[in-house]
Amino acid sequence: MVVEILAVGTELLLGNIANTNAQYLSQKCAVLGFSVYHHGVVGDNEERMTAAIKEALGRSDVLILTGGLGPTEDDMTKEVCAKVMGFELAEDPHTRERIESYFKRTGRTNITKNNWKQAVVPVGSRVLDNHNGTAPGLILEKDGKTAVLLPGPPNELKPLFSEQVAPYLHSLQPETIYSQMVKVCGPGESAVETAVLDLIDAQTNPTIATYAKTGETHLRVTAKAENEEQAKKLVKPVVKELKKRFGADIYSTSEEESLEDVVVKLLKKYKLTVTTAESMTGGMLASRLVNVPGASECFHEGFVTYSNKAKRKVLDVSKATLKKYGAVSEQTAKEMAKGGVFASDSDICVAVTGFAGPEDTKEEPKGLAYISCYIGNEVVVREFHFTGNRMKIREQAVVRALDLLRRCILERCKNEK
Amino acid sequence: MVVEILAVGTELLLGNIANTNAQYLSQKCAVLGFSVYHHGVVGDNEERMTAAIKEALGRSDVLILTGGLGPTEDDMTKEVCAKVMGFELAEDPHTRERIESYFKRTGRTNITKNNWKQAVVPVGSRVLDNHNGTAPGLILEKDGKTAVLLPGPPNELKPLFSEQVAPYLHSLQPETIYSQMVKVCGPGESAVETAVLDLIDAQTNPTIATYAKTGETHLRVTAKAENEEQAKKLVKPVVKELKKRFGADIYSTSEEESLEDVVVKLLKKYKLTVTTAESMTGGMLASRLVNVPGASECFHEGFVTYSNKAKRKVLDVSKATLKKYGAVSEQTAKEMAKGGVFASDSDICVAVTGFAGPEDTKEEPKGLAYISCYIGNEVVVREFHFTGNRMKIREQAVVRALDLLRRCILERCKNEK
Repeated sequence: MVVEILAVGTELLLGNIANTNAQYLSQKCAVLGFSVYHHGVVGDNEERMTAAIKEALGRSDVLILTGGLGPTEDDMTKEVCAKVMGFELAEDPHTRERIESYFKRTGRTNITKNNWKQAVVPVGSRVLDNHNGTAPGLILEKDGKTAVLLPGPPNELKPLFSEQVAPYLHSLQPETIYSQMVKVCGPGESAVETAVLDLIDAQTNPTIATYAKTGETHLRVTAKAENEEQAKKLVKPVVKELKKRFGADIYSTSEEESLEDVVVKLLKKYKLTVTTAESMTGGMLASRLVNVPGASECFHEGFVTYSNKAKRKVLDVSKATLKKYGAVSEQTAKEMAKGGVFASDSDICVAVTGFAGPEDTKEEPKGLAYISCYIGNEVVVREFHFTGNRMKIREQAVVRALDLLRRCILERCKNEK
Repeated sequence: MVVEILAVGTELLLGNIANTNAQYLSQKCAVLGFSVYHHGVVGDNEERMTAAIKEALGRSDVLILTGGLGPTEDDMTKEVCAKVMGFELAEDPHTRERIESYFKRTGRTNITKNNWKQAVVPVGSRVLDNHNGTAPGLILEKDGKTAVLLPGPPNELKPLFSEQVAPYLHSLQPETIYSQMVKVCGPGESAVETAVLDLIDAQTNPTIATYAKTGETHLRVTAKAENEEQAKKLVKPVVKELKKRFGADIYSTSEEESLEDVVVKLLKKYKLTVTTAESMTGGMLASRLVNVPGASECFHEGFVTYSNKAKRKVLDVSKATLKKYGAVSEQTAKEMAKGGVFASDSDICVAVTGFAGPEDTKEEPKGLAYISCYIGNEVVVREFHFTGNRMKIREQAVVRALDLLRRCILERCKNEK
């Protein structure tokens, strides 16, 4: 079955807010096994809203409308939708009661006449009690089409959806969708794409979709089946094949797991501590590690050595190295990593030095970076040429530094259990 | 004139990402004086994309398409849009050259055949060079309708829009729109809104729009007039009034200028150097300073002292203080800032210690943070209670730390010229 999401609100069309409701609802619908082919946003305008609702109901089985259920004049989603689908409107005593008790509960006294507008519902619709606001959710069914109306505020929309709309939708949809993520770091997006082109061309069920992230590519394998168990059966061999093709370039096959999650997990597993020595990234690498709750177990301190003086003083990079090879060099990167280990007595140090721009200089082309990892008295260093603006270059450097750290730990500890 | 925004991408329909491009483009279009009545999202599907493009071009003057310009199989926005509008496709030698040099610059050697798909453009379209990626932006004009095609990644889309599309759109619009930004840090969004409610209610031309950012609120004053000079005349008194109302809470009235830009500018102006001592923010504060090109002049090194041991060793925070008051305390924050100044011989140190969660603990409620600034042998410390998830709490702490630094410099140097 096909679900369509139509958000109502001028604040979206003015760019005051992003349409995060559509993202939330799409995720939930995907899990429930519904296909979502269209998102739409329209303003509080009767003519345009009427056209948008008609069109959506024409091509989709279920239309989820968000927003425009407030008490004010220009809130008209309920009225327009009822008109389009041919429902009468009447006050619902139960809802009026609920709104009254809601006001009592929240100590609201200045109740204006227009508040009771929210107690008016399409006759014959299902009313979904909203425990976090006044506007009820509504389900309108007619001629095999369904419209679900939800209030715009996420703190009202989300509980209404998960507690009342999701079970309703599930009852409409026997099919289940199961998808698994395969996260690749190293090869570029088009290289990843080329490596799986034959699988994508041959795909029917499961399907493979690729998503480019900064410094990473994610592959989502999605299968439809009668139940989750069968869907998993369909996904498994494809994921196995992807693992065969990408090997160590895959850092995770979990939806939630980020690159820093994986790194911190490995550090904990092998009881290792890490420190960071950052020049170009200026603390971004450390802060990525600290994103992970409980990182304190394996990360105690980090160094931001932006000036050459700081590299010498804090990391003991030799004056001669900086003079001969420059701050952005393999040699400096190596000495930074080594120095970081000794300055912090951590087991590992990842160091990043590079030139993020904004402009090229004679000595250092914008995007050139050296990332090194000192582990077990050995130091590995890699040269990179990143592109994009200053921020993008630094973000890519951080991803590659985390990935180098991941690979060095795996290489170092591959014989341990 | 009416602009419509149509995003292409299955990742949006699956809810993997929110449509932040639509928000960005809507804001920019509003500033340029265009009306936006519809946002749409459609997948990488020829039939549905064709229908969506036809419909959008039927009701709007300008259609901005985002995404689906990649090198992969399912990227087809360019092909479908050209077909709908009746454009032939041919390889553009200039674009092929640009892509080749882009690969050279980025040291990419594994160039696959599908990369050259991105050098193919609609014959007669304007090609917009993309300096942050391979896919060019495109402008197609026919029968009084315009389609603007932009790559999906925000770091490619935003510079393409601001540098090349915005001036083009401006040329389509006879009326001049002039707007000025007033950036406020300190009071919360609703406090800011309440403070200007009377102005917003009374507004016609110019208008005032408020945008909530993490830890900041931006106010945009926009006027329409025959020419820029007249528009500026309309904006000026309103901005003056806002300055009167918010005073030192305003850190900038420039569109481009970020909080870290202002801080670095002040540091340079007064020839001061700063260092950072971070616990909870784990390097985020330092990396915000390093966002600013030329920050090296006033920022040489920073400390990430995540463990108590590191706070003692690196920043000389006393064991007694940590034992008596704990790591998240006014006293520890003060000692961190003082220690940072002496460890780095910088003029100033900003220190952040707090508890970002994910969960409350007995000792430290999630969101509690102390931010201190040591300058000229004086240390200022502030207590904060942030809300939101771990990342949101850390982001707010970074903004408030930069703002405290800004205010301390201004206070300290207010008598200098």
